[in-house]
Amino acid sequence: MTLNVGVIGTGMIGQDHVRRLTHVLSGARVAAVTDVDLERARTVADDVPGAAVHETGAAVIEDPGVDAVVVTSWGPTHEEYVLAAIAAGKQVFCEKPLATTRAACDRIVEAEVAAGRRMVMVGFMRRFDPQYRAMKAVVTGGEIGAPLLMHASHRNPSVPDFFTGDMTINDSTVHDIDVARWMFDDELAAVTVLKGRVSRKAKAGFHDPLLVILETAGGVLVDVEAMVNAGFGYDIRGEVVCEDGTVELSEGAGAVVKSAGRYAGRVPATWRERFVTAFDLELQAWVDAVTAGGTTGPSAWDGYATTVACETGLAALSSGKREPIVLRERPDLYSKSGTREGVTA
Amino acid sequence: MTLNVGVIGTGMIGQDHVRRLTHVLSGARVAAVTDVDLERARTVADDVPGAAVHETGAAVIEDPGVDAVVVTSWGPTHEEYVLAAIAAGKQVFCEKPLATTRAACDRIVEAEVAAGRRMVMVGFMRRFDPQYRAMKAVVTGGEIGAPLLMHASHRNPSVPDFFTGDMTINDSTVHDIDVARWMFDDELAAVTVLKGRVSRKAKAGFHDPLLVILETAGGVLVDVEAMVNAGFGYDIRGEVVCEDGTVELSEGAGAVVKSAGRYAGRVPATWRERFVTAFDLELQAWVDAVTAGGTTGPSAWDGYATTVACETGLAALSSGKREPIVLRERPDLYSKSGTREGVTA
Amino acid sequence: MTLNVGVIGTGMIGQDHVRRLTHVLSGARVAAVTDVDLERARTVADDVPGAAVHETGAAVIEDPGVDAVVVTSWGPTHEEYVLAAIAAGKQVFCEKPLATTRAACDRIVEAEVAAGRRMVMVGFMRRFDPQYRAMKAVVTGGEIGAPLLMHASHRNPSVPDFFTGDMTINDSTVHDIDVARWMFDDELAAVTVLKGRVSRKAKAGFHDPLLVILETAGGVLVDVEAMVNAGFGYDIRGEVVCEDGTVELSEGAGAVVKSAGRYAGRVPATWRERFVTAFDLELQAWVDAVTAGGTTGPSAWDGYATTVACETGLAALSSGKREPIVLRERPDLYSKSGTREGVTA
Amino acid sequence: MTLNVGVIGTGMIGQDHVRRLTHVLSGARVAAVTDVDLERARTVADDVPGAAVHETGAAVIEDPGVDAVVVTSWGPTHEEYVLAAIAAGKQVFCEKPLATTRAACDRIVEAEVAAGRRMVMVGFMRRFDPQYRAMKAVVTGGEIGAPLLMHASHRNPSVPDFFTGDMTINDSTVHDIDVARWMFDDELAAVTVLKGRVSRKAKAGFHDPLLVILETAGGVLVDVEAMVNAGFGYDIRGEVVCEDGTVELSEGAGAVVKSAGRYAGRVPATWRERFVTAFDLELQAWVDAVTAGGTTGPSAWDGYATTVACETGLAALSSGKREPIVLRERPDLYSKSGTREGVTA
Repeated sequence: MTLNVGVIGTGMIGQDHVRRLTHVLSGARVAAVTDVDLERARTVADDVPGAAVHETGAAVIEDPGVDAVVVTSWGPTHEEYVLAAIAAGKQVFCEKPLATTRAACDRIVEAEVAAGRRMVMVGFMRRFDPQYRAMKAVVTGGEIGAPLLMHASHRNPSVPDFFTGDMTINDSTVHDIDVARWMFDDELAAVTVLKGRVSRKAKAGFHDPLLVILETAGGVLVDVEAMVNAGFGYDIRGEVVCEDGTVELSEGAGAVVKSAGRYAGRVPATWRERFVTAFDLELQAWVDAVTAGGTTGPSAWDGYATTVACETGLAALSSGKREPIVLRERPDLYSKSGTREGVTA
Repeated sequence: MTLNVGVIGTGMIGQDHVRRLTHVLSGARVAAVTDVDLERARTVADDVPGAAVHETGAAVIEDPGVDAVVVTSWGPTHEEYVLAAIAAGKQVFCEKPLATTRAACDRIVEAEVAAGRRMVMVGFMRRFDPQYRAMKAVVTGGEIGAPLLMHASHRNPSVPDFFTGDMTINDSTVHDIDVARWMFDDELAAVTVLKGRVSRKAKAGFHDPLLVILETAGGVLVDVEAMVNAGFGYDIRGEVVCEDGTVELSEGAGAVVKSAGRYAGRVPATWRERFVTAFDLELQAWVDAVTAGGTTGPSAWDGYATTVACETGLAALSSGKREPIVLRERPDLYSKSGTREGVTA
Repeated sequence: MTLNVGVIGTGMIGQDHVRRLTHVLSGARVAAVTDVDLERARTVADDVPGAAVHETGAAVIEDPGVDAVVVTSWGPTHEEYVLAAIAAGKQVFCEKPLATTRAACDRIVEAEVAAGRRMVMVGFMRRFDPQYRAMKAVVTGGEIGAPLLMHASHRNPSVPDFFTGDMTINDSTVHDIDVARWMFDDELAAVTVLKGRVSRKAKAGFHDPLLVILETAGGVLVDVEAMVNAGFGYDIRGEVVCEDGTVELSEGAGAVVKSAGRYAGRVPATWRERFVTAFDLELQAWVDAVTAGGTTGPSAWDGYATTVACETGLAALSSGKREPIVLRERPDLYSKSGTREGVTA
Repeated sequence: MTLNVGVIGTGMIGQDHVRRLTHVLSGARVAAVTDVDLERARTVADDVPGAAVHETGAAVIEDPGVDAVVVTSWGPTHEEYVLAAIAAGKQVFCEKPLATTRAACDRIVEAEVAAGRRMVMVGFMRRFDPQYRAMKAVVTGGEIGAPLLMHASHRNPSVPDFFTGDMTINDSTVHDIDVARWMFDDELAAVTVLKGRVSRKAKAGFHDPLLVILETAGGVLVDVEAMVNAGFGYDIRGEVVCEDGTVELSEGAGAVVKSAGRYAGRVPATWRERFVTAFDLELQAWVDAVTAGGTTGPSAWDGYATTVACETGLAALSSGKREPIVLRERPDLYSKSGTREGVTA
């Protein structure tokens, strides 16, 4: 009854998922791990009773003691592991991005379509965040009319030295892109990237913040403030404006302290703090769905569409113009209902 | 058309009312002032074109150029000036307390009853605060059922050296006592004062904070946290619990700042900041009512009843027991409708 | 000591200012009124002791019993009255817009420059709103670094039948344009208007909502959601994003009611409710400044610059492109310090 | 590595814990169940692969396939099962109350002391609620000075027909009693119960709401509004007042909806919704501690002290007086550090 999971990639998010599978979630255990840094993989495995260490991702996937695979390696390696898992007939949970290029995502979609069933879940955890879910329930419920606009802010406190300008789109705004598609059950049609005044904290040649304008096929405009040197915390804001009202994410619950002339609540320090519950619910949903014989959540198609939107966003960042987002035809496997939650066998 | 006001007492609150009558409100001017410190009165008058300075409160009241009187002198002198104003047939606005003893308040009530019309308004400004008014509108409107309980906190940042233990009741809780009577359109029946742990900031022999329990004749319990060394700001909280819901004062509106790991809003620094609008509305209401030939707002009866409640509160502070609040019969002049807002000629 | 004010135009906002000058503010009275509908002017004057009714605006301005003029007539008539007041050497408070065309505003600026002193204040009341002032104090104070972006929403519950598409810019967004200039002490350099999904409540051929993108000369991007059929209330939102933090307008203070599964606070129903205090402070500031021999607040230059920005905004609405905002040279009379608050004699 | 848990009592909370152990938590499974209604136990077991059904609690405890025991049966039966588990040398998690009488709790304490190690955890889940933990961290951290007062509200939407007046203390206020002891790391010294106006929704002869005043040995006063017919939701409020500031529980995070003239957030509908995360964290902590060879969280001593406080509270409800809370000497096994979190082997 316990799902034996192989984890490829034991960096920050990989370690977090290993901890989650081992100590937090129900019905799963980590059976094998690997990492480009084998020593790191061994250190991680030391704390997980019964976990094997393999030299390659392929070996993890082929391990008969592994029922399903979590891919948390470096983005450019995702395609290889996801395709191998599909080929091996094993369900795979892949952290975003599904793959780093449109062509690579295309190949994964093709492979999954050829397999005839959904085998891939992509790690867009916001879809499992209770606040976002409450927001979507209001929007979908129709109680405040049809959606017209969305305002979003995505503020990272700081970024590491290796962070480059395109990563604001690829690593940060990618979540807002997925949220927009999911919130309105619609594809994106165009993206514009506006560059205003640059923060003194931005590295040379690096625009921060950006104001990204997304347009859904149905005409909903989504403005996203993407700021990766916000300093004060990890702050995620969102408001959907509908015909008869709006719905927004509240500030986080917690203790409110009054002292020295003000009342104050906490802004999360990191994405891990902000989305810890979402990550737990996300991976539990995957474990449950795989145990039940299928998968759930964001599909390979969602991975494909967000990667295309990111590529187009980079073109827009470069051109300074509104760039249309052009998708291939959506295979039947990913009919709209298939992108919703719920196990699909 | 301009109401000529005489102001007796030009200390902190007196100066504030002079400023208000001169620069903020419509339809009034300060015609004469006096103070126990004549030099201070002269300094205040220097900034008010046409304001006379008199040597005594009696002279202010008798001045034929004075239409109505504001009493903002030291509490123990209130009785004398209020009685003199009634005797002179001039409307009087008296800062709380109406008078410092039950007997003195009694004499004022008698004098006003003998005069046959309301001539006194007492400065319980919370009744004019937009938040409190919104709260009362909900309670009175009945939309959340009958009131059962009220929770209140009254936090002063600090108090001057001359502040003594009984002033927590007489100068601070007196406002909560008035609010309780006004909110529930009812008299108080009993008061208990609980003493817990003492703040290190309290002076020797001085209990701070206190937890004061008021009971209305109709059985509503009101717990009041009275704290005069709160340090962080001037913080007034209130929540009325009704059968089907509650209504509470919100935190103040203003700018919310996100920085250094938190979102934060301002707590007022002083009572003046917190209640500036209430004071403006209160005195404008009095000016308008007097100009229209009557008065409005908290009556001498309200002044009497709060003073009796404060006296009983001090007895309870001393005895450690629940003490019943015993009032004289309410004269017809102060029928319930007479304590409500609206000009009464 | 009382300022005698002549009011030209006694429609909704005119009546509100007459009430304010008569019953709320200190140091002013309404001495004369007129309106295109003389009967309406007479009805208004009936409630104002001593107010004359004149047949024309010119007559109001020329009335020797009128010290200063308030222009609250139909926008296209503003130029004529403002110029006449300047010619008559009388200070004038003009509701926005200063004038409806760039050329008309130009003529007013010329006339004022020729007069050699500021004689015009334009009614951008948000500059006097306590929340906006607190926000600007934070931005200007520098405690959270230099400003980078601003997000704003301007939601009207509904608009009358005569409201046309351009009025979203001219009557509604004009306030956000003024706020952007004032908040960042800078001129606007460009405007783009994005049109997304249209609310079912918008009239035919009328885009609602709009997403207006303003750019200051210094590069600050301001996105403004302009929605005139929001239905649920009059909702004004704003957040300035700085290098080290953000500052935003809070929800309004008031009573928070818990009932039927939720806690809820009030959204203002109308602009009048939302900005009542701002209007009071604005007109009192003008009365005080005029009494002191000068004027204050938003200048004719501010009126000119906002009208030019609105004209450019309409061009952008029509072209679908980013349109640069081109201003004439700023006369010395309107040096930056002159646009700030404080009386300028 | 999996902890095999026997569950005695499969009513509402028992079923919830079975679901939690089976589908949510890591490292545990339900190995056996029983219930006074065997049919209900069988229905529950049907959904849990491999779970045995036993006819008695004793049989569950004795089952060699059961490593540790969860007691979620009717309160009066707790003593028997807890004592049996201790006798069998198996760790036990017991829902509150530990036992329904002081004498019964005494016997459990004696048995555990005789066993020479902690074997009992009592289900006071608030200690695991993130908001309460954040509040306690502030209080303990000392950043706002020593605690002086606490205000609390405990509002249940409604209660079933079998609910009796004493259950307001025993089933509801018991949590606030535990919070007070935990928050201030101190025992309670006295309790007073005030009865005010009765809600029309209270059953005959049943006081609702109550205002319960707790006093800690160190002098902190805690006022608890206990209301079991609040109607609008399950609403838990708390604020600790310290010498230099206060800390309070915020309203719950979630989506805030603006519509029809107000902004509104959700009040939880039930205790299950409000405390779902706390229950998860609580039971996971127990599973982890037991797996590590000990236990954690609220001890048998905490169970004893709260039951004594409840008994005293009922006496106070009946007498209308302040009643001192008298505890037996605290055995060394429950030294203060032993009541804190952390596994104690």
